[in-house]
Order: sequence, then structure tokens, then C-alpha cells
Amino acid sequence: MRNSIGTSVILTLFGESHGEAVGAVLDGLAPGMPVDEGYIALLLSKRRPAGAADTARREPDAFRIVSGVFNGMTTGAPLCILIPNTDVRSEDYAANAGLPRPSHADFTAHVKYDGFEDWRGGGHFSGRLTAAITAAGAILLNALERKGIDICSKVVECAGLKDESSFEEAVLKAKADGDSVGGIVRTEITGLEAGLGEPWFDSLEGALARAVFALGGVKGIEFGGGFALARMRGSQANDQFCVADGRIGTETNYSGGINGGISNGMPVVFNTAVKPTPSISLPQKSVNLETGAEATLEITGRHDPAIVRRISPVITAVTALVISDMLALRHGTDYLSE
Amino acid sequence: MRNSIGTSVILTLFGESHGEAVGAVLDGLAPGMPVDEGYIALLLSKRRPAGAADTARREPDAFRIVSGVFNGMTTGAPLCILIPNTDVRSEDYAANAGLPRPSHADFTAHVKYDGFEDWRGGGHFSGRLTAAITAAGAILLNALERKGIDICSKVVECAGLKDESSFEEAVLKAKADGDSVGGIVRTEITGLEAGLGEPWFDSLEGALARAVFALGGVKGIEFGGGFALARMRGSQANDQFCVADGRIGTETNYSGGINGGISNGMPVVFNTAVKPTPSISLPQKSVNLETGAEATLEITGRHDPAIVRRISPVITAVTALVISDMLALRHGTDYLSE
Amino acid sequence: MRNSIGTSVILTLFGESHGEAVGAVLDGLAPGMPVDEGYIALLLSKRRPAGAADTARREPDAFRIVSGVFNGMTTGAPLCILIPNTDVRSEDYAANAGLPRPSHADFTAHVKYDGFEDWRGGGHFSGRLTAAITAAGAILLNALERKGIDICSKVVECAGLKDESSFEEAVLKAKADGDSVGGIVRTEITGLEAGLGEPWFDSLEGALARAVFALGGVKGIEFGGGFALARMRGSQANDQFCVADGRIGTETNYSGGINGGISNGMPVVFNTAVKPTPSISLPQKSVNLETGAEATLEITGRHDPAIVRRISPVITAVTALVISDMLALRHGTDYLSE
Amino acid sequence: MRNSIGTSVILTLFGESHGEAVGAVLDGLAPGMPVDEGYIALLLSKRRPAGAADTARREPDAFRIVSGVFNGMTTGAPLCILIPNTDVRSEDYAANAGLPRPSHADFTAHVKYDGFEDWRGGGHFSGRLTAAITAAGAILLNALERKGIDICSKVVECAGLKDESSFEEAVLKAKADGDSVGGIVRTEITGLEAGLGEPWFDSLEGALARAVFALGGVKGIEFGGGFALARMRGSQANDQFCVADGRIGTETNYSGGINGGISNGMPVVFNTAVKPTPSISLPQKSVNLETGAEATLEITGRHDPAIVRRISPVITAVTALVISDMLALRHGTDYLSE
Repeated sequence: MRNSIGTSVILTLFGESHGEAVGAVLDGLAPGMPVDEGYIALLLSKRRPAGAADTARREPDAFRIVSGVFNGMTTGAPLCILIPNTDVRSEDYAANAGLPRPSHADFTAHVKYDGFEDWRGGGHFSGRLTAAITAAGAILLNALERKGIDICSKVVECAGLKDESSFEEAVLKAKADGDSVGGIVRTEITGLEAGLGEPWFDSLEGALARAVFALGGVKGIEFGGGFALARMRGSQANDQFCVADGRIGTETNYSGGINGGISNGMPVVFNTAVKPTPSISLPQKSVNLETGAEATLEITGRHDPAIVRRISPVITAVTALVISDMLALRHGTDYLSE
Repeated sequence: MRNSIGTSVILTLFGESHGEAVGAVLDGLAPGMPVDEGYIALLLSKRRPAGAADTARREPDAFRIVSGVFNGMTTGAPLCILIPNTDVRSEDYAANAGLPRPSHADFTAHVKYDGFEDWRGGGHFSGRLTAAITAAGAILLNALERKGIDICSKVVECAGLKDESSFEEAVLKAKADGDSVGGIVRTEITGLEAGLGEPWFDSLEGALARAVFALGGVKGIEFGGGFALARMRGSQANDQFCVADGRIGTETNYSGGINGGISNGMPVVFNTAVKPTPSISLPQKSVNLETGAEATLEITGRHDPAIVRRISPVITAVTALVISDMLALRHGTDYLSE
Repeated sequence: MRNSIGTSVILTLFGESHGEAVGAVLDGLAPGMPVDEGYIALLLSKRRPAGAADTARREPDAFRIVSGVFNGMTTGAPLCILIPNTDVRSEDYAANAGLPRPSHADFTAHVKYDGFEDWRGGGHFSGRLTAAITAAGAILLNALERKGIDICSKVVECAGLKDESSFEEAVLKAKADGDSVGGIVRTEITGLEAGLGEPWFDSLEGALARAVFALGGVKGIEFGGGFALARMRGSQANDQFCVADGRIGTETNYSGGINGGISNGMPVVFNTAVKPTPSISLPQKSVNLETGAEATLEITGRHDPAIVRRISPVITAVTALVISDMLALRHGTDYLSE
Repeated sequence: MRNSIGTSVILTLFGESHGEAVGAVLDGLAPGMPVDEGYIALLLSKRRPAGAADTARREPDAFRIVSGVFNGMTTGAPLCILIPNTDVRSEDYAANAGLPRPSHADFTAHVKYDGFEDWRGGGHFSGRLTAAITAAGAILLNALERKGIDICSKVVECAGLKDESSFEEAVLKAKADGDSVGGIVRTEITGLEAGLGEPWFDSLEGALARAVFALGGVKGIEFGGGFALARMRGSQANDQFCVADGRIGTETNYSGGINGGISNGMPVVFNTAVKPTPSISLPQKSVNLETGAEATLEITGRHDPAIVRRISPVITAVTALVISDMLALRHGTDYLSE
């Protein structure tokens, strides 16, 4: 699978940060789904660097749908979406070529691709590719909304703080220190039917986790009560059944809407742990990959002091991909446009 | 994929708790791998209920290799392993048929399979199937050991306690109360080469997460510093490079041995959050699936007051499956027997 | 995929000719499908050696459903079917161990599996495994019938003859000569909806071809007019549209019911070329795999002088698998039991 | 999988005939493979309409590599190749919109995509997409050549004639008659190692057949002796072993280089039956999809009176994809650049 995800609705990702474009192919879309370019632009705008708390790189994320849409509707053929790269300054990176950045993919990419990787700006590993994921995911997010399914991701913790009004200040403080911070994003899926997901290897938790760990910087995921459940007793953690309006639900939702890998009709809830951006301007220890000698690295490019805000819509986008795929597999290929 | 996992080395799971047997098919094994039945039995013994702190159900987990082994070695053809069910007492379950157990898969299975599911003892959702996963995984764990790769899982927290000597007491206390507890398992992979895993959708984290979330009771996973990283600054969280014995490593391992989805040569480390066993003997609120009325459930069967100890070898087993698959994909189908 | 086929309904094959059993796991079955053991036995009986024109090996093909069926209905969990081997005479093969049979898989298996393959009676390559395919396929064939879709395979040519009454005589004649013959099987699928299959890589033709070439002895497949179309002009070969009973059809069916990889509502028709059985008793040239010297091989075991009759129900079975998988993918996982 | 093929080396296809571009993403390429644009252009030129015997549509097939190549070498990241559409005359098609062409995909596309398909020039079904397949396949064909593996496809029969010098005349004659012809392409793979392919569902024959049937117009495939084998006796059809230069081979090659689904080291040989182009200018019977009434169709666009010559390099390209994928799976992801 590598750069692809999905069984019935399949996304394939390509592109490099400093190449011509990043893009994605979405295959298996139901024919007759409206494609609202404004909606795509809106979700893209949420991941775009905005205020002082984000990277100074500015890209309009202008996208072009190359195939799969005719008269504003999906045709059922693969939809290719391209986002050209424009504001590219490779020279920022050239200075440090050969000195891998700590906790970044530079070193592992070098080992894996034997020196042939496009190292400029992170190449294929760049966060820039999440624009393509977001654009593709937006098409499905919109389709899910038409089905009454909503997916919402929001930062619930930043730099260890839980009060939203303090987030920007904490990020700017870190930036001023040449440093970076992390945070936690909570995602909630509402309106989802019961019965989605499989026992064992295609559990809803596993499918979502695989998709969310695709995103650079993610180091943990927990569903419902998550790690806190490990410290509870069963009598506390179990979600007691109840009947309301003739519908079976549960009094609490420590299960995060999933039992035995399958959605139970309650909101699906998960938290994603995002580490602090590894690119900081403080001096760091690296090694010269040519000589093998230890070296000091000082990063001068434009970077985000925190990606936790910008990653939220991307988590929403991959969640939309996973849910769409599972719905199409369960109900058939035309389900999302019915 | 459903009940299968893997691309080059593929496991397919089948069976029900109260059917004839549980089992697994392992396909894509390198020919010429020794199959040590004693080694399989040893890993199985670690997940078997043992002391007073486990379920009273006693099964020898006698397994039979039905295919794929000839003269004690893998042939390269699919290896089918069967574990017959013996100590089956369906009547324990019959009393509560129609009353789903809170936070168990009874309700979601019922919705998904429309009442056709084998509900006896959890059927295909039963923890009993982890015996088949464990037996199959043991074959690969043994092969990895011959390659110098070790995988070790251990309980690092139980019932909120971190002192190993207090675990059994806490479990017995919960059992006496008709209740259950959860815990956290830490898994460490050592000896693993750098370069394993893919950027984006086939990241090492994503692949391991998908496999671990296959196991009932798992509600969270974190790699390296995990959720704690979300509260650190980049300057703390970044693993500074160093050179030791001519080999590039890092001074710390907050990344858990993975950057950009790819192993970096340091130990791969992750924590798994296991919720308290949902089957408790205290009365709980359920609903009668036939009448739709709220009802009280009292579970009388034999159950584990904690599965965190017994799930450890299963996490090791699925980890062995994931790592074997990635190695075979990277280095070729014969790699594990070379 | 290796020993598996399918995306939504997935078959996984295992076993060896002279091992404990052959078997298959069918995953992704809709819950609530009746499983009629008599129907399975009937299809199995069609591939079983019967008269003087078949191998003398006699096996009852007694099968056992190990999982996935409860109260006579599929549960939605993987269905494992086992067919124990009984009438096994490995000594017939021991004499020729190390001397690969011409046009058989002995040599390629030896190269691929490096000498670790189970060579007894063809091992995993044995036609015996088609019993497991047939048993599994029968379950789906039965489900398709309930949907009004029929699949029928029949021998239309044997030993170069097209008159059915002459087939058995030709086979017996070859047998008397220590030789073997081949033939052609025609398969017809009626009642199939239009719209099944995908353009390009998941074409209905490609999916069926892949499945049919899985069977040992198959060396060609053609759809509709097939190779004869290569000699026609477009004006002859094109199927002109017509309307009958308000339904769009075509006057001829040179397309074999498929255009652009997608079913068009006309019967799907294809021919399969089956080579003569490679196991003959006439002396043949082989090589001693240990010494590398040329050698003469005389096969003394029990063999079919023609497999074309026995392969027919197996082609039907794999066709049922492919069609079921495509229907489930198109209409959803529960479609076959609705 | 739909518009994708491959397990380790994966091609994903997109685009429409009259849209912005056609293209493909190649994922899983070994890093460090030289990408020779001249070589790609050369293979593309072989499928391009050339003389009077081809369609009058003229496209330079100018391609652009959007990602995955850096300094002339593959990086290991997905390679996206785009071929913009230029010489597009949709008005040729508008006249016949709503009247499906016999034996073309118009009708099946309409049924499958519910009227949302891009019908202009065949849309996603157009032979134009084979340019993208050919460009992508060329990269792998070149890599295989560096490994000593050659793939060659040639027309061995056209319009029922086997003398190559008569082909063009026959095509021009059909064109003059407003008609079209078909033919047979023979493909030969030399230099291929023994041991490639799997028994049963991933047989080399099945994998190649699936890939070749992806191409519009293909209605049959046979390996080695193919359909003629069905009329031989085993004693004729079996390839007797021999030893030459210390290497085990066979005296004949009726098996087409494959036994039990696995390559045996002899040349892999197969024939592909290509039907006559369905687009002819003679009047044909169609139906009006809106009114449901029978109608007469007269096609006026620019079309090939025979695609058998132009499809040859495309068969070579998909063959290169299949072989590359199998080699990468067997020997590891870096094999093709080693």
C-alpha cells in the first residue's frame, strides 16, 4: 500500500515540498457526488499558516482537479488533485544538507533511500503533502456531512495548557525562545451508524490509528477514556446501556463509541498526541552524514513553532477518508452519493 | 483484509470461542524456517490463564500444524495452525443471551451481524482467538530472534500501580469485589535495523498501532515519549544525535526509535493502554435486545479480572507479525530464513 | 495476496496433498446466508474421480466446517472448511523423488522453495487443493443462485473432439496408451446485472482470468468470440444493440457479456484451455536434481488421463468467488444474504 | 485496487481523454534507478498513431514527471507522470452523445456511473490512458533491461494474415471500407529467473492475464502452446527436461516458461487476442439512452482501423509492471536498482 490508504475508497499521495507540485489520486468515489471547490478551499485554509504563531512560508494552496470531475460532479473515475508548489526557497535547506535534523525524518530517509531522497525542504516527508491529503479528504468530509455525519477536530491542549485562550501566547513564547511546543487534538465523529468496523485487524480503532499515525509529529492516539481507562475499574469504565427515545445508547462513553472494533452508535472520540515541531532554531547536535563526525546544526529556515493547530484539519481529513472507505465497503460503492 | 494482516507475510484468523477450534493461516513464510513447537508452546503458556488472578477456564492450548511444515521446516506454502476448543461451557452464556454486556462487543456484533453471530462465549470476538494469533506470531518471533531482533512486552502498570510486586494483590482485590482492573504494557523491539517503515500511510507506528488495536481491550497506544511529548518543548523532546562505536545513534529516545514513520536504529518502544475487563460480576445495566427494555445483567461465567498480563505475549506476537512482514517486503520473501 | 483472492469476499487456501488436510478460509461472507452441506457435497462430487476415465485415487471429500457457521447460517465471521486427506500413498511418489516430472510444478517448486517443499503427491501444488476451492465456492454459488445468477461450466472439447459422446472413449484410449489428453471448458454466467467490473486493472475479464489461471493445467482463456475475434472485422464482431421487452441487449454476444471490463447484462461467456495432464506413464526425460544428470522418469502412481472434466466444477467455483466478491464490493457486504 | 495494480511496485492510473491530462503514479520504486526520458519517449512513440493506418489524432505525448525523481534518479517516493491532452475535439463526440457505440464501453459506463461519466472521447475508458501506462511501464522496462531481462511484443497476426508485409495493406483496406480489423500480439520475456510467481491465485499467468485484460480490446490470452495444447496428448505437450551448459532447461517450450504458476527459466511466451476496433464509420444499430428507442449510429470522429500495432508496446509496458512487481516482492524493494 505504501502511499495509499483504503480498500473501496483509496487515496494515493505523491509530491515533494520543493518539486513541481504535491497531489493525490482518490479512487473508488461514487459517481454523482458534488465537488464543491469552495468547501475544499475552506478546509485547506484551516491548515494554512496564518498568524504570527505559524511558519512564515505563505502558499495559497491553489489546487487543480485534473481528472474525475465532470460538470461539477464526480464521474466515478479516479479524481486527481494537484497543488503546485510556489513559495519555495531551497537555499534555506542547502546550508544544512548532510546534517540531519534531530527527531526529523532526514536521517531515516537517508538510510532508507540511500542518499537518493529529495532532501530539499523535507521532500516527500514534508508537511506540505498534508495539503493534498486535506484537499482530497475535504471532498469526502463534504459527502459525509450530506449523510449527517460530522467530523470535528480541535486542539484541547497546547504546550501543556488546556485553556484555549492561552495557546497562542505559549506558542509565541516558544518561538521567541527559538523553540517549539506540542499539543493534543481531540476528534469527534457524530451521526455515525452502529456496525462500522471489523473485529480484529480491521477494527475502527486500528484503521483510524493507522491513518492518523501517517501524519508527521503524531506520537500517540487514544480512544474514549484511553490511557485513563487503564487506571479505572471495570465498574467505572463500563458504559452502562440505556434506552432513550427508543434508541439504545450508553450512559457514559468511555469506549469512545467503539466496542470490539465496531462503532456502537455513540460519538466516536479520540485524542491525538502531537509532539513539538522538531525544527527549532536553537543549536542542536547532529552528525555529518558524509564524514560521520558529530556536528552542530543551526536551522535558519521558516518553521512552525507548533503544528498542533495546523494538523487538526488534516486529522479530520484522514478520518473522513477512513470513514468513507468503511461506509463504501459496507454499503456499496454508490452509497456516498445516494 | 478483515481478518487478515500483512502484505508479504500474511496472517488470517478464524474460529469461535465455543466452536470446534480457533486457528490461523500464515502465508508468505520463507521456506526453510525451523518451526519449534516447544517455542510456540512457551509463548502460548504466557497468555494462558495461570494463577488465581486469571479466569478459571483451563485450556491446554494444544495446537496442531495442519499444513506448511515438512520435516520440521516451513515449506513456503501456507501454514495452518489449529487450536481445538475443549473446556467449553456454553450454558454459562445462555442465561444472558439477548442481554449485551456493557463495553463488550455483544451489542455491536448483534447490530453488525443482524443476530446471526455466534454469541456463545463471545464467538469470533472472544479473547480465545488470541491463542491462534500467539501461536502464529511465535513462529515469526523465533525467526526474528535468529536475526538478532528481540521483542519484549511487559506490564508496567496495573490498576494504576507501577510496582510490579503489587499487581497480583490489586487484581485479586478487584476480583473479590466482583470487579476488574486495567493496565499498561510496554513493548520494546531491539536489534531492529534502521530504514523499516514508510512515510505516510505505511508508517511503522501506523502498522504497529493497527495490529495492536486488533486486540480487544486496547484503547490507546503511544510511541516513545508519547502523550508526554505533547507537553514538552522541542529542545527537550528532540533526540540529539551522537556517534558511538562508529554508529550513529541518539542521546535520548523520545522518538521511540521511529522518525517519519521509519525505524532509526534505536529501540522501538511503545506503550499500550488496556482497559479493565468488561466482564464483571457486579450487576450492570443492559437492554433486552428482543423487547428493547432496560434490564439488569449479572454475569456468572468464568472471567479474567484483568487481561493485562495475558495480553502481553499477544502484543509481542502481533508485533512480530508486523516486523516480519516489513522485513520480508524490504529484503525479499526468503529473508527470514537466510 | 499469494494464496488469497478477493477484496470484499476473500478466499485463503492451504494444505498439501499428503498432509493432514486441505482447506480454505472464506472471509467477508454476509451474515445470514444458509449453508447447505448437501449442495457443497454435490459440487464436490462433480470434481471427484468417478469412472474408469479418472484417477484411481478415491477420496470421499468429507468436509468439516470448522468456523463461521451457527445454526446452519453464516455468522459473518470467517468460515473455515477442512477436508482431511485419507487415501494417501506417498510411496508412489517416493520412488521418483528428485526427478521432476516434465511440465509439472516439481521443478519450479524445487527452485522456488529451495528443496524445502513438501514434494509428496505434488504437495501444495496438488490438484487435491481444488477440493477446498470447490467446497468454498459452492457456498457462494448457492448464494448467487438465490440471487438469480447461474454459473455453468461444461466440457465443449476433449482430445480435439467436439462431440460429447466421444469424450470418454478418447480419454480411455489415451489412458490405454499411457498417455493423457486436454480439452476446453466453456463457462456461462447468466442473470448477471450490467455494471459489474472496473475499467483497467479490475476488469471483469482480468479478475476472472486471474482466478481461472490459478488452476493447474489452464493455459488459455478467451471471452466471447476470443481469438476468433482477432480474425473478424469490426462490422462482424460488433454486437449491435437492440431493445427487447423494454430491455437493452445486443443481437450477438461476441463481447462475451463484457465491454470496457464491465458486464453489459448479456451472458458472460468464456472458454478455458486445459492442457493434457502432465503425469503420464510413458517414459519421459527428466534430470536428477541432486546430481544434475539427465535421467529417465517412469511415473507409476494413480493419475488422471484427463482433468478437463474434473476441472469444470472448479472453474465454476472460482467464477462464483469472483462474481460474489464484485457484487459485495459494489452493493455492500450484506448483499448476498439480502 | 480498481485503477491500481501491483503489491510492491504499484501503478495507479487517472485521467480522461478530453480532460486536462492523463497520468499515473508509480509507487514502490527502488531509489537510485536512472530515469531516462529518451527511453520513455521511445516507447511512447511506438504506441503513437503514425502512418495512414492509424487514427488521424496527433498528440506529441509530451510527458512531465511531477514527483519522485531528483537529479535524474528515482528517489523512492511516488513518481507521478502527467501527459497533458492537447489535440482534443469533443464536438466529434457530441453529435453521438446518448447513442452508445456497439462493443464499446459507452453503454456499460453509462449503467455503472449512472450518467455521470465523462463521455467525451471515451473519457476514462479512452485508449489515450494507455499513454500513461506506457510511460510508467517504460521506466520499469528500462530497469529490467539493466537486469538482463528483455520483454518484446510484436504483431504476429493481423486481419487473419500472418505475413507481416501484408498487415498495412489489410488495415488500409478495412479503413477504406469504413471498417476495422483485429490481430494477435506475441510477447516474449527472456532472461527471467526461475522461481517467479506463486502457486494458485498469484500465478505468473494469472498476474500477466489480469494486467493484459486491463487493456481495451483484449479478448483472449494464451501461454506457450495455449489453446493448441488442449488438442495435444501429454506425450507431445510435455516439455522434456535436458541439461545444456550445466543448466537445466527443456527441449520444447509448450509451457510458455511457466509451470505451476511459476517461471521455469525458459522464455515466458504468451499471445494476446485483440479484437477489431469497435469504432467504425459504417452505420450501426444503437439505442437512444434517453428515450430507449432503437437508433442508427454513424461515427464520424478520427479512429484507428486497427489498434493491434499500437497496443503492442502497451502490452510490453504492463508486462514490465507485473514482472518488476514480482521481482521486488521476491528480492526486496531495492532489487531493481542494485
